[in-house]
Amino acid sequence: MLFFSCDYAEGCHPRVLEALTRTNMVSTPGYGDDDFSELAKEKIREYIKCPEADIYFLVGGTQTNQVVIDSMLSNYDGVVAAATGHVAMHEAGAIEYSGHKVITLPEHSGKIDADELKQMLVDHYSDASAEHMVNPGMVYMSFPTEYGTLYSRDELGNISSICREYEIPLFIDGARLAYGLAAQNELTMEDIAEYADVFYIGGTKVGALFGEAVVFTKRNTPKHMITQIKQHGALLAKGRLLGVQFGALFTDNLYLEMGHHAIKQANIIREDLKKKGYQLYMENPTNQIFVVMDNKELDKFGEKVVYGFWEKYNEEKTVIRIATSWATTDSDVEELRKIL
Amino acid sequence: MLFFSCDYAEGCHPRVLEALTRTNMVSTPGYGDDDFSELAKEKIREYIKCPEADIYFLVGGTQTNQVVIDSMLSNYDGVVAAATGHVAMHEAGAIEYSGHKVITLPEHSGKIDADELKQMLVDHYSDASAEHMVNPGMVYMSFPTEYGTLYSRDELGNISSICREYEIPLFIDGARLAYGLAAQNELTMEDIAEYADVFYIGGTKVGALFGEAVVFTKRNTPKHMITQIKQHGALLAKGRLLGVQFGALFTDNLYLEMGHHAIKQANIIREDLKKKGYQLYMENPTNQIFVVMDNKELDKFGEKVVYGFWEKYNEEKTVIRIATSWATTDSDVEELRKIL
Amino acid sequence: MLFFSCDYAEGCHPRVLEALTRTNMVSTPGYGDDDFSELAKEKIREYIKCPEADIYFLVGGTQTNQVVIDSMLSNYDGVVAAATGHVAMHEAGAIEYSGHKVITLPEHSGKIDADELKQMLVDHYSDASAEHMVNPGMVYMSFPTEYGTLYSRDELGNISSICREYEIPLFIDGARLAYGLAAQNELTMEDIAEYADVFYIGGTKVGALFGEAVVFTKRNTPKHMITQIKQHGALLAKGRLLGVQFGALFTDNLYLEMGHHAIKQANIIREDLKKKGYQLYMENPTNQIFVVMDNKELDKFGEKVVYGFWEKYNEEKTVIRIATSWATTDSDVEELRKIL
Amino acid sequence: MLFFSCDYAEGCHPRVLEALTRTNMVSTPGYGDDDFSELAKEKIREYIKCPEADIYFLVGGTQTNQVVIDSMLSNYDGVVAAATGHVAMHEAGAIEYSGHKVITLPEHSGKIDADELKQMLVDHYSDASAEHMVNPGMVYMSFPTEYGTLYSRDELGNISSICREYEIPLFIDGARLAYGLAAQNELTMEDIAEYADVFYIGGTKVGALFGEAVVFTKRNTPKHMITQIKQHGALLAKGRLLGVQFGALFTDNLYLEMGHHAIKQANIIREDLKKKGYQLYMENPTNQIFVVMDNKELDKFGEKVVYGFWEKYNEEKTVIRIATSWATTDSDVEELRKIL
Repeated sequence: MLFFSCDYAEGCHPRVLEALTRTNMVSTPGYGDDDFSELAKEKIREYIKCPEADIYFLVGGTQTNQVVIDSMLSNYDGVVAAATGHVAMHEAGAIEYSGHKVITLPEHSGKIDADELKQMLVDHYSDASAEHMVNPGMVYMSFPTEYGTLYSRDELGNISSICREYEIPLFIDGARLAYGLAAQNELTMEDIAEYADVFYIGGTKVGALFGEAVVFTKRNTPKHMITQIKQHGALLAKGRLLGVQFGALFTDNLYLEMGHHAIKQANIIREDLKKKGYQLYMENPTNQIFVVMDNKELDKFGEKVVYGFWEKYNEEKTVIRIATSWATTDSDVEELRKIL
Repeated sequence: MLFFSCDYAEGCHPRVLEALTRTNMVSTPGYGDDDFSELAKEKIREYIKCPEADIYFLVGGTQTNQVVIDSMLSNYDGVVAAATGHVAMHEAGAIEYSGHKVITLPEHSGKIDADELKQMLVDHYSDASAEHMVNPGMVYMSFPTEYGTLYSRDELGNISSICREYEIPLFIDGARLAYGLAAQNELTMEDIAEYADVFYIGGTKVGALFGEAVVFTKRNTPKHMITQIKQHGALLAKGRLLGVQFGALFTDNLYLEMGHHAIKQANIIREDLKKKGYQLYMENPTNQIFVVMDNKELDKFGEKVVYGFWEKYNEEKTVIRIATSWATTDSDVEELRKIL
Repeated sequence: MLFFSCDYAEGCHPRVLEALTRTNMVSTPGYGDDDFSELAKEKIREYIKCPEADIYFLVGGTQTNQVVIDSMLSNYDGVVAAATGHVAMHEAGAIEYSGHKVITLPEHSGKIDADELKQMLVDHYSDASAEHMVNPGMVYMSFPTEYGTLYSRDELGNISSICREYEIPLFIDGARLAYGLAAQNELTMEDIAEYADVFYIGGTKVGALFGEAVVFTKRNTPKHMITQIKQHGALLAKGRLLGVQFGALFTDNLYLEMGHHAIKQANIIREDLKKKGYQLYMENPTNQIFVVMDNKELDKFGEKVVYGFWEKYNEEKTVIRIATSWATTDSDVEELRKIL
Repeated sequence: MLFFSCDYAEGCHPRVLEALTRTNMVSTPGYGDDDFSELAKEKIREYIKCPEADIYFLVGGTQTNQVVIDSMLSNYDGVVAAATGHVAMHEAGAIEYSGHKVITLPEHSGKIDADELKQMLVDHYSDASAEHMVNPGMVYMSFPTEYGTLYSRDELGNISSICREYEIPLFIDGARLAYGLAAQNELTMEDIAEYADVFYIGGTKVGALFGEAVVFTKRNTPKHMITQIKQHGALLAKGRLLGVQFGALFTDNLYLEMGHHAIKQANIIREDLKKKGYQLYMENPTNQIFVVMDNKELDKFGEKVVYGFWEKYNEEKTVIRIATSWATTDSDVEELRKIL
């Protein structure tokens, strides 16, 4: 079977595995208080040209969103997100579990719109009942979005400006950051660090066994952050594993290199799909391709390819996801093209 | 000044005050474990013809919604409500604070639609990602709604049937129940008790100083309910005050009588508004009237009448609320008519 | 039956009831945004000689403790209290429900000891695992304590100094404040306001139908306090009821006068008990008397007097509570003395 | 430097690393829905002779305690633990964060006592104020305890019986289970599974990179368990990593073999310490040794050995922890003996 259903189907990139293997029997203190972690943080700081960045390594995406949002918000705050945002849809209520409302804005190809954000804030603060409502205390966006789309520099800049104006932090979920950066020429990780108040660099979906690097870029780390991470059950005992992995990801540009690889593979498939007349559900430039398939054709397709079910399109058709990753080989792509 | 901004602007109905005064120096045990409370519960059980009903008296509406929802839901459950539902909009995130997502459905004049509810449930349980999503564990509706509208017997019956089919409780918020019952002929409180799995009879907005009576109608009281109420800070030390007040409300049909009074006054005002050519923002038969007013006219109106600001209609016009209640006198109505 | 089991067995003091009756039909805005509430706050500020005090009226004690503690603490903070403190024992986990650990210190006649508090703080901050532990973020004490005992000025001053040194707020639960103030000559409410960072003036147990006045004395009100109160389900719609009641309590010194009345009655009973050879479980100067009674004698006593069961003393004896209040009449005391 | 400060200082056992390496490029579905995980669960079920066991793999210990306790308890429940229990002391309030009180019992060499547990339950349910108190809804114990001590079969059996009698689950935290099983002859993992209602098999401290296997042994898995895990941010995307690791741990008896190795090394050191006249802070048979050291001697010791600081013994002496593990080599032990 060909495996194209997601970008977290394999273990880790060989260079990450090599680093884990090489350091396996080194003894270190626990909870991230080790040299591997320090070194990895230093590499990231240099990479994003933000020497004052404060970095924490966590294990997974939902955990990271919960910890970041809950530690930065006060009781009375909610987080603003697209209706299709991961925190709004597919985290089993992890944000509400930690006491905060997800205030949704309409999604436009998975993105929030700066004008709608502004209007929502204007309306909120001019509402006579504002004291009886959840305060919009943070803006969350994913880059790329859950639909694989990207904010342009203008779009991101506008949203960031609004956040600064209202003094609420902008949090960018970079679960697939490498794929977003590799798919366009406008924005670098340095830009992401500049526009965001906090963001995370996704490892789980980009070549690590697991791990997300949370970066506070504006000297704005919540107090007692280690205690807050521990309290959420998110402090890894062998924190060095995260340091070793992110150290490898940020050595010799591996992180972005994996991004480019996945995008190259996705583009080949995307072109092939278009050439063969398939209907794309939504245009996007990153590693996830959403295709509308005839159900009968899909039955056959599914015999050879593990794909991601996205949603019913209508009675006869289905939207599926085809995802490439750092692990997608040329022969995988060739095989897929033969089947399409 | 004439006061028409809300239905909780005065203290309590004279008969309620008389009961509080008469019983003031009687010594009773605390926390609702007193004869006044027992008697009031008995009266309500008889009134709704539901001898197995289990009744708890709480202090206020948001508190009641929080306690009922949180005590009936499991961690993994959210509550389904109209986007304009009180729990979704104007409770400062009290539901999320207790760990539960408010899953919103579109509102239609403040109401949820049975077909949309059904479709949402069908979609949820057929979603491959359902395990990663909040489980719809309860349906919340208000009767009347936040817009003063009412569900018909058919609408309520359909929603109730869907809840039974999916084995999720239907919770009816009756903050203004008397005004809803008095404004139509189809549904009685007995019917409400039958269709709902749990509902509350609002006292705060209908003649009590404060107080809401939560009624579990299907032998479905959550375990350790007193402990759960206490844990939410919602157990009134002098619980007898609630018993005394609800005892008075359910003596000589006072509760519904007050409902009829407010509806009669509202209808006089409503007719007058229509006759004089005012634009109603939304048609509804209950004690809240939403009027679109020209801003200049509103300035003058506001010099003589305390009204409720609802929202901006456009640059020139504003939606205001005029609310009657058990306390609205004939002379108040006459005065208002002169000003209109 | 004589009723001596608690100090919240009746409604409210006649002067409070008179004020409620007199203002009953006045129309006011909701949620505490009314003139009665403003006036009551002004009276309290004058009484405690703290013009910068910020005051909020809530309904009940557990609710108040939950709201104050949760709004002042950060996620990583817990509250330090005596093992017998109300928040540690008898609030059904309301503090933990809001996410915070109650860190207990040993109790000494219901009180915490300044040296033990200091040692705990020293130990915590020198503990290599401090980051893995709950941060002591507030000190809670009750005045009087749950055992009716009182802190001396020295004791209170020492604890307050330690709190200042460690920059953690001192919260004084004054559910029975009037009885504590009336029972000694050292400390006034002005002193309480000075030593505390936040405290509350209990109304429920001192002549109000319900109500507690939270006083932030150091310009330290948590942000968005109304929203936080609402979020906890603790914002009373007819907030004016609290303003009217506290206005009456702080008119013509009624609050302290009621305190003196209850102490006078308690002292008569206490003397009588001692003279007749009863064993007091714990010496204290306030309105609660803890007596060790022989079980057989207690059976008879219970036929005529409603007392509070406190705990088993041994197989043959029981500790009971006899509480006086503003409502205890001379004839009640005489009757009780005849029975003893 | 010699590293004896903890049992999670290295990566993983070579056989675990080999399994991870061997399976690294295999594509699998995410979130534990893979064959490696199924196989590992099957191996554990066979090992504990409990075919009906329901097993979930989580990442770390505090996370596991939080998820298990919160998913099994109702709102009104707390968890009973020793005052020194990990959940009571060193989890940064993770249990309270999820809304539940940790009800502490005195510790006896880190253990709770069956009689004291029974008495606490008897007292609770006979307390007139029980409704105002947190309900004891679960008993938590660690095996070995935080002090490296072990419950005997009798002690465990008695506690288990009390839990059955009161119908509250017994949860055994087996973070170091292998070391506990290897250090005595009375109890097997099969016994643990029998006495407990839920327990976990610790991987992090016994040869895995990370991972804990939660075992529900009495057909008592909480509903919607995957959703609850996700909601706590604890669902690992590449769940297969846990399956692969536990598969290796339960192949060829590796798990217990590592336990025996650590105990053998600990016993050599323990004997050496005794022979050389060192004072042990507490006798225990497992892999953690608590030694009272003179501060001056400790300064020198610390130049060559990384030890765990435990607590100050007095002004001149300190309690330290020396921990062995699966990774402690014979030469490590020899070197340490030379230094002692």
